[in-house]
Amino acid sequence: MAQTDILIVGGGPAGMVAAATSKQYYPDKKITVVKKGEKSLVPCGIPYVFGTMLDSPEDDMIPCGARAEKMGVELMHDEIVEVDFDAKEAIGSDGIRYGYEKLILATGSVPKTPPIENVDAEGVFYVPKDPDYILRMYEKVQAMETIAVIGTGFIGVEIAGELAHRGKEVHLVGSRLLKHAFDPELSDYMEEKMLHDRVRFHKDQRTTKILVDNEGKVTGVEFKSGDRIEVDGVILATGYRPNTEMARRSGLSMRQYDTIYVDEYMRTTKEDVFAIGDCAEKRHFLTKRTVPIMLASTATAEARVAAANLYKINLVKSFSGTIDIFSTVIGDTCFASAGITEEDAAKQNINTVSSSVIVDGKHPAKLPNNRQQAVRLVAMAHSGIVIGAQVIGGTDMGEMINILGVIIEKRMSVYDLLNLQVATHPLLTSGPTSYPIVQAAQNLVVQHIRS
Amino acid sequence: MAQTDILIVGGGPAGMVAAATSKQYYPDKKITVVKKGEKSLVPCGIPYVFGTMLDSPEDDMIPCGARAEKMGVELMHDEIVEVDFDAKEAIGSDGIRYGYEKLILATGSVPKTPPIENVDAEGVFYVPKDPDYILRMYEKVQAMETIAVIGTGFIGVEIAGELAHRGKEVHLVGSRLLKHAFDPELSDYMEEKMLHDRVRFHKDQRTTKILVDNEGKVTGVEFKSGDRIEVDGVILATGYRPNTEMARRSGLSMRQYDTIYVDEYMRTTKEDVFAIGDCAEKRHFLTKRTVPIMLASTATAEARVAAANLYKINLVKSFSGTIDIFSTVIGDTCFASAGITEEDAAKQNINTVSSSVIVDGKHPAKLPNNRQQAVRLVAMAHSGIVIGAQVIGGTDMGEMINILGVIIEKRMSVYDLLNLQVATHPLLTSGPTSYPIVQAAQNLVVQHIRS
Repeated sequence: MAQTDILIVGGGPAGMVAAATSKQYYPDKKITVVKKGEKSLVPCGIPYVFGTMLDSPEDDMIPCGARAEKMGVELMHDEIVEVDFDAKEAIGSDGIRYGYEKLILATGSVPKTPPIENVDAEGVFYVPKDPDYILRMYEKVQAMETIAVIGTGFIGVEIAGELAHRGKEVHLVGSRLLKHAFDPELSDYMEEKMLHDRVRFHKDQRTTKILVDNEGKVTGVEFKSGDRIEVDGVILATGYRPNTEMARRSGLSMRQYDTIYVDEYMRTTKEDVFAIGDCAEKRHFLTKRTVPIMLASTATAEARVAAANLYKINLVKSFSGTIDIFSTVIGDTCFASAGITEEDAAKQNINTVSSSVIVDGKHPAKLPNNRQQAVRLVAMAHSGIVIGAQVIGGTDMGEMINILGVIIEKRMSVYDLLNLQVATHPLLTSGPTSYPIVQAAQNLVVQHIRS
Repeated sequence: MAQTDILIVGGGPAGMVAAATSKQYYPDKKITVVKKGEKSLVPCGIPYVFGTMLDSPEDDMIPCGARAEKMGVELMHDEIVEVDFDAKEAIGSDGIRYGYEKLILATGSVPKTPPIENVDAEGVFYVPKDPDYILRMYEKVQAMETIAVIGTGFIGVEIAGELAHRGKEVHLVGSRLLKHAFDPELSDYMEEKMLHDRVRFHKDQRTTKILVDNEGKVTGVEFKSGDRIEVDGVILATGYRPNTEMARRSGLSMRQYDTIYVDEYMRTTKEDVFAIGDCAEKRHFLTKRTVPIMLASTATAEARVAAANLYKINLVKSFSGTIDIFSTVIGDTCFASAGITEEDAAKQNINTVSSSVIVDGKHPAKLPNNRQQAVRLVAMAHSGIVIGAQVIGGTDMGEMINILGVIIEKRMSVYDLLNLQVATHPLLTSGPTSYPIVQAAQNLVVQHIRS
């Protein structure tokens, strides 16, 4: 029997931020993190393990032990298999019982198994946030020449690009690229960039079968169309599901997509038990529906809310729903998105207007390394409240999307954006005369006033 | 006599945005811009004319004629010497009278003359936003080897850096670097970067005299301390004053710092006359005092407000005061600031708290081109409302300061920032666990809750 004050199950971004934040708020409490292995990966960094930017998977790993020690947090390597909420004890795989005052579940997510024949064949890999798995996978993938990547979300697109940079022949299979985060034109532009990176894209093909030899090793994949391609290996980037079997088994109330029910303070239905990150329910900021958004940035925001409110209600969560906010790099171009796409808004029957502008990212445009910036704003047709944005450009757009994130979170309208006060500088931004967020807003306002 | 509907005096960023915006709102109105010369410079780009990034001053020039034609705006080359507000006519230097329905003054600013002996000597230059002057100056500066730059605001610091890149021996003279925008530690760090760029910094020296030879040509400068340095030329980057003599002479009500009085809609005291940009009064967002802030980005924001409200009140200005928001690059490091500094807040007797954090700008930190990011937040001690921010890092910080600008403009508190929803990506941003705006906010909240 081990006794602690604050017990955190899971050592990913949510768990570790919950631990660090709890330590800041309650320096006198004993804080214990229980996680499976000794190491952790930076989850979003996993695709870059397979490219040319890191020397080895080790470069993507976090020294959890050292970090926990520095934070003054106890780290235990164990797997919690059940929680006894009445006794306030979590039970480890060897039967060790961890008593707690407050329990935070941050058990994350695991890859989904897609309905593909022979999905367990040798040479088929998932992309779990599991360092030992990734290390083994890395060695095997290094030896392959031709690889099929199934799935065109962020992980699929990023891994495909990185493998191609490494000189692999890559077949990418799926629907239009990053379709949940971007409207079709942007996917088309990404597609161009991917092809430029020497990735072969099998668009709108559905993989139904992994082809294997007599020893059960991958030799190719077969699509629903009957088309086949030969490959040495397959990487399944077909999404994640919350890692919540233990929570369900232990008796927590669950919500759609196998998520754990949480309220605004990240409290579950059991006293003194919180859930944060991929395992916890997310409701969409606009539609208010439960949505399968899994983002480290959202997870860490939830971790900070939970930790602040463990013992007393100190802070109201300042967002009333989750904003899907993403960024990535394809080739050398940044694509980023926040809030709802126009396509998704139409599906949800939301009455929107949109405007896109393209400007030079430096001024004058003749300065070195000038890149064009494209900004698309999606706003409510009546109120002009901004509900979505998509941007394309250089790496500085990775922070520009966060301006738009704040704009969406604060329910700002295109009218508020008309005279946004921004810093502009020749070497850093577009010109003050054409700052793209302002220009796109003005286009929408003028349309509205004149119509 | 020339008659127009909307007459805009001045062809800088404010004038041109006023013209473009007026055209968007009132496509049927005739719009005329009167400006002095044929060309315009990108004002913030002027320092870069003297470095290695542009081939010639021409690269910083805007083809005003072509741009106006494309916009459907009439461009006249003339100087307005007086306005007859009763007759609603502006009078050009050759006596041409321009009748108007609505008049927008965007006459900008001109360099201040500092109280230095022999300030008119041959080889002494100002940095006006005047293309012909800059072209002549450029030729002469090219021929010089050793140059004194007097003034340590943005223009002085940027020109000094660029001249040094060009291989000149540069003496920079003034107080601590960019002291109005940054707190002392940041100035110290800039100083290191400048010295690294081979600029000799004569800190806290005041220039009292330009030394000249028998022909009246510059040979050096003398400081108040009596110290002298030998130079071939002197560049005075000692600030600007509003170009408002014509407005005053014509009878407009003026405010402190020779600015034209304007209300929230950029209206002057005369019917149908608006003023925008450097020539118009700015009130500080927090202290509500008149402040000498001159920024192209503010100027263009005001231009959009004025144009929207020329004929009818359509849009309330969404900001109730001017936020000083700046960015620059020294060496290869971006420095940016928004709102009030701690030093200035103390002078104004504002009760503040602050927190600084330094994080890796990519995650994992082993990714190529990782740069550290420093973020300092200044907040009101009681409410936690963010009133200032300063950042240092790579070029992506040029957009990060604009996140902070929105945060200040929307009067967000550190509590609102605790669970800000941001996009993070290995190649684009710091980790979700350490996003520096959030981390700095959390440090302030924890201090507050625990104190």
